[in-house]
Amino acid sequence: MTDGRVIVFTNPDHFAGPATIPALEAEGAIVVGCTSDAEQVSRIMDQHGRIDVLINNDAFPAIRAPVEDASLDDLRNGLEAMLVAPFAMAKAVVPHMKAAKRGKILFITSATPLNGLPNYAMYVTARGAANSLALTLAKELAPSNIQVNAIGPNYVENPDYFPDELISNPETLKRITKHIPLGRLGKPQELAALIAFLASDKADWITAQVIPFSGGWA
Amino acid sequence: MTDGRVIVFTNPDHFAGPATIPALEAEGAIVVGCTSDAEQVSRIMDQHGRIDVLINNDAFPAIRAPVEDASLDDLRNGLEAMLVAPFAMAKAVVPHMKAAKRGKILFITSATPLNGLPNYAMYVTARGAANSLALTLAKELAPSNIQVNAIGPNYVENPDYFPDELISNPETLKRITKHIPLGRLGKPQELAALIAFLASDKADWITAQVIPFSGGWA
Amino acid sequence: MTDGRVIVFTNPDHFAGPATIPALEAEGAIVVGCTSDAEQVSRIMDQHGRIDVLINNDAFPAIRAPVEDASLDDLRNGLEAMLVAPFAMAKAVVPHMKAAKRGKILFITSATPLNGLPNYAMYVTARGAANSLALTLAKELAPSNIQVNAIGPNYVENPDYFPDELISNPETLKRITKHIPLGRLGKPQELAALIAFLASDKADWITAQVIPFSGGWA
Amino acid sequence: MTDGRVIVFTNPDHFAGPATIPALEAEGAIVVGCTSDAEQVSRIMDQHGRIDVLINNDAFPAIRAPVEDASLDDLRNGLEAMLVAPFAMAKAVVPHMKAAKRGKILFITSATPLNGLPNYAMYVTARGAANSLALTLAKELAPSNIQVNAIGPNYVENPDYFPDELISNPETLKRITKHIPLGRLGKPQELAALIAFLASDKADWITAQVIPFSGGWA
Repeated sequence: MTDGRVIVFTNPDHFAGPATIPALEAEGAIVVGCTSDAEQVSRIMDQHGRIDVLINNDAFPAIRAPVEDASLDDLRNGLEAMLVAPFAMAKAVVPHMKAAKRGKILFITSATPLNGLPNYAMYVTARGAANSLALTLAKELAPSNIQVNAIGPNYVENPDYFPDELISNPETLKRITKHIPLGRLGKPQELAALIAFLASDKADWITAQVIPFSGGWA
Repeated sequence: MTDGRVIVFTNPDHFAGPATIPALEAEGAIVVGCTSDAEQVSRIMDQHGRIDVLINNDAFPAIRAPVEDASLDDLRNGLEAMLVAPFAMAKAVVPHMKAAKRGKILFITSATPLNGLPNYAMYVTARGAANSLALTLAKELAPSNIQVNAIGPNYVENPDYFPDELISNPETLKRITKHIPLGRLGKPQELAALIAFLASDKADWITAQVIPFSGGWA
Repeated sequence: MTDGRVIVFTNPDHFAGPATIPALEAEGAIVVGCTSDAEQVSRIMDQHGRIDVLINNDAFPAIRAPVEDASLDDLRNGLEAMLVAPFAMAKAVVPHMKAAKRGKILFITSATPLNGLPNYAMYVTARGAANSLALTLAKELAPSNIQVNAIGPNYVENPDYFPDELISNPETLKRITKHIPLGRLGKPQELAALIAFLASDKADWITAQVIPFSGGWA
Repeated sequence: MTDGRVIVFTNPDHFAGPATIPALEAEGAIVVGCTSDAEQVSRIMDQHGRIDVLINNDAFPAIRAPVEDASLDDLRNGLEAMLVAPFAMAKAVVPHMKAAKRGKILFITSATPLNGLPNYAMYVTARGAANSLALTLAKELAPSNIQVNAIGPNYVENPDYFPDELISNPETLKRITKHIPLGRLGKPQELAALIAFLASDKADWITAQVIPFSGGWA
């Protein structure tokens, strides 16, 4: 279905990348991994001639700090990584998608802005900004047949937020999973399946959604 | 992926049925159509030995009436069809799903409770009730590994709400589609694809969601 | 500010009634208590000549039952009390409010449809329906300068849901309050203050809101 | 009710300031206007001995630009004004509120992140971040008896977003108000009333809310 489609996937070695990229490739997509540097976009256009889908897969440490101890520079750095960078990527691909009269932009963000998360204001805030960006771009770009959505994971096993060394401790794992209605962490392949669905032609009529992916937590 | 799984699908000739059932069958599922009569459930269990997924696909006329003219009997009838019937179906399948330690319940409802729809209070209200039912059952049944979600369509071509004779009129179609950010009606096959995804094993970690499916309208 | 305004308040001896009615009267409002029987409305109009505000204050037992044990008749009865009755009240007052070119309708419902509540599907569902009703009527009636909102309490001390005999047990109280971010039950006077604000002229530009009132729980 | 309470109100000459400050003072509050510079906080503490309420009233131009033309520096500046500054203010007052075992923080933001607004991604995004900040701080600070909420206005007359010179043009006004269910702009005094309510003791049990204030638009 996505045969030959060009999917730009940022930060391929992080967060949703390791499990999702093989799933997209298995469907026949050409996945172009890159840093979140918008200057990559013109190079990719030169090389591949098209960008069908942009998947903003931004990871940044969820630095724990009560608000009174939080660092404004951490906040600025978090915003730069989790909001400004994917904003710049969207800005760079939109002209090409408008020219093609079609396209999809997907932000992999977080479910935490939907419930709040004590002592993580920096992280929650930057992710909330990205969720808002997805929604407003969706409304802006719908007339150009460009679908924009966000997936907000929480409690998914992945190399950045729930690495093996953390969750291989049964006590730690139990303490984490008690917050999850479904009682277990999400699998990277399950997140990959949702991303692949929303990135495919099957989802051509889905836009302006922020879909929590957190086992029922949000 | 869903090979051999038994999916109970209510009101197969209506609403999402005609497009979705072939899509589910193409994946290898055994789809058992039935009325929304919970007494069917024991018969289906006898015959098939299992129920993996229940898809409540309830349709009822969206009777137009300003609230002061609305009929309380229409309201009661709408609640009976769009809430009590799928509630009874859920009630009937849950013991079997609990015994199997797995299961999925999907309600096909409406996006209208999320935005409101003037002059359709009866319909909006009954659909809002069903969306709430999906959410609360999801929280209740998550510890039993039963996922519960709702899909809330609006503006999808289907034999019940947007029949051919309505939308084949270009003026009517234009008047309808101007409310839809993506500028066109949804295709039954697109709704079928979302239903099939949420009914599949791929969605084992998705629960407690009410997902609007309305081209960006909600 | 509300001097002389006529406020119809259903079920005055229940739920939000005992604390709210004196608060409304202290502001100079004429509060007309009545059952949730829409036939009262014409009698009230005859007697008072106007209805400025309708406050639907419906209480019904939150009957605990896992869905498989839930009674469909309880569901129907809950819908009749928590949805059909206030729907009928709204239906009856709207013509008078339209004639007056102003009015307010307030539904006192529940926050539980926003989070779900395991083993209370009947109650959650009926309250969710009423929340949807508030939203859709707000959109329908805004052009007539009628504001419609819902307040969704949970964990507020009141004679119906958290009676004294329950919460005077310190162990029970502790078990309940651990779910509330603010760490205590809400006071009836606090709920009364929010109701009084939304029922006043100060809230003439607030409509289509379902405001949770649950100490941060929802 | 708020007699003698010290309310820190940022950017008093902008946005909600001109109408709200007199309303708060009329209730007996001491309103301390200041820039959004967190260094002001220790000076205010020295002078007044307490801070009961912080009202973050941040305004920044809603710069219109399709995403492909949007300036990343505008985005960074908008984030600095609408997110980092109020974050810093919250950070500065929280230790004093924790010591006092009570406090309130209110963010005046925008309803636009709830609906999206084409061609205003910078503005919508920064406001969405602030809404998320309010929610997550509410969850973090509830155990310290500090209530945190956001009010999200849109379509309220005010010197920054809908100045007289704009709305005194009947054509412009008509074009604007057609989006508002209640059919008119909100009055600054109406916004002031909602702010005053949420800043008062009456709202001691309300937290973690993002309340749209937009005449039914959101």
